[in-house]
Amino acid sequence: MDYTFTPVALVRSPFRDKFGVPRQPSLAPSARQTVELLPPFDQPDAVRGLDAFSHLWLQFVFHQTAERGWQPLVRPPRLGGNRKVGVFASRATHRPNPLGLSLVRLHAVDTENGVRLHVSGADLVDGTPVLDIKPYIPFVEAVSDARAGFVDGPPPRLAVRWQPKALQQLALAGHAKDLEQLAEEVLAQDPRPAYQQDPDRVYGVRLYDCDVRFRVADGCAEVLEIVAL
Amino acid sequence: MDYTFTPVALVRSPFRDKFGVPRQPSLAPSARQTVELLPPFDQPDAVRGLDAFSHLWLQFVFHQTAERGWQPLVRPPRLGGNRKVGVFASRATHRPNPLGLSLVRLHAVDTENGVRLHVSGADLVDGTPVLDIKPYIPFVEAVSDARAGFVDGPPPRLAVRWQPKALQQLALAGHAKDLEQLAEEVLAQDPRPAYQQDPDRVYGVRLYDCDVRFRVADGCAEVLEIVAL
Repeated sequence: MDYTFTPVALVRSPFRDKFGVPRQPSLAPSARQTVELLPPFDQPDAVRGLDAFSHLWLQFVFHQTAERGWQPLVRPPRLGGNRKVGVFASRATHRPNPLGLSLVRLHAVDTENGVRLHVSGADLVDGTPVLDIKPYIPFVEAVSDARAGFVDGPPPRLAVRWQPKALQQLALAGHAKDLEQLAEEVLAQDPRPAYQQDPDRVYGVRLYDCDVRFRVADGCAEVLEIVAL
Repeated sequence: MDYTFTPVALVRSPFRDKFGVPRQPSLAPSARQTVELLPPFDQPDAVRGLDAFSHLWLQFVFHQTAERGWQPLVRPPRLGGNRKVGVFASRATHRPNPLGLSLVRLHAVDTENGVRLHVSGADLVDGTPVLDIKPYIPFVEAVSDARAGFVDGPPPRLAVRWQPKALQQLALAGHAKDLEQLAEEVLAQDPRPAYQQDPDRVYGVRLYDCDVRFRVADGCAEVLEIVAL
């Protein structure tokens, strides 16, 4: 028996597509996002009392990859992209059901003219459909001594350097301050596929309305230029 | 746009219906449950590496109450049943999308003849359809200083006493040892609706193949009898 669900909200996010989105929430804490409730769920009553909680769960759809199907085995980037684990032992986006789960920090509940939740730390692409919003319950869910195999700590970080041209372009971009901080957090995570290690290759990550072009060599991400989209 | 999902597993559980299920997972740690993967997902490859994790997330369907619809406001038992909060500020089962989320402890991964995950602490009714299984990632999800309004600690517990007749019936029941421990954990949580405080009223909670009949007075749950179903 199948089950059909209707989005209750859409995410507004500086992440324009999947490339560059941190592999876990909280790794890019500057990523401010807005969860906009959709009719008929956009009632202040539906979120009454939510501001008593500092963190929320979002259950959402991997809408950009939902059509691609699934494989029983995946190659997690944390294992260098060359060891396979089961899809249910990973948080990969290509799953039998393209359901995501992210813990985000709640900053404000705005109930003027609809309902908007201002959150941060989310690893969500702009336009992500949200199926449910739930409060985080630390006495149940904060299991600090849980054992987590190959993901029991944050991944190593790259240093980030800006070329002078990129810094000039940054100063002219919209959201300049937010973009600078977010770009540093995103590039520090090394968004490249695990199997690509070419130091000359230029990548682009789309944040806000910009394409941030960079390359990676010797443990350092170098921002080359910022191009308006 | 709606999204349709197919269950990847079904839960086998001593909880036969919603009444008596703990209001959060982990409150009845003796509740041993089995997550049985369904074809075509029941492949050992799909869970390879999962045994490196001590805890799992289950995203599931509240199938027993899925048809009942939702209201923007609910009355959480933790607030005595007389204060209302928004449905998205609660973990109530009647939600716009009847999606559940439970953290469970993983004890064993059995890949002989299909795939079965042996878990405990789940607050899941027998037959619950599971839409996704994900590893728990403590470095992201164990936020010990999160603020959680009215649910920032476990609820008070009732004492549990057994009448002699109930103890005799327990000794004859299947799963006698498990049933005793589970019944004590479940009744200590006070499964009665918050608005019912009649000390003479007899309730029944269905665990394994038994109906455990009890009443509550003066902070104590008293087991009156155990009836085979």
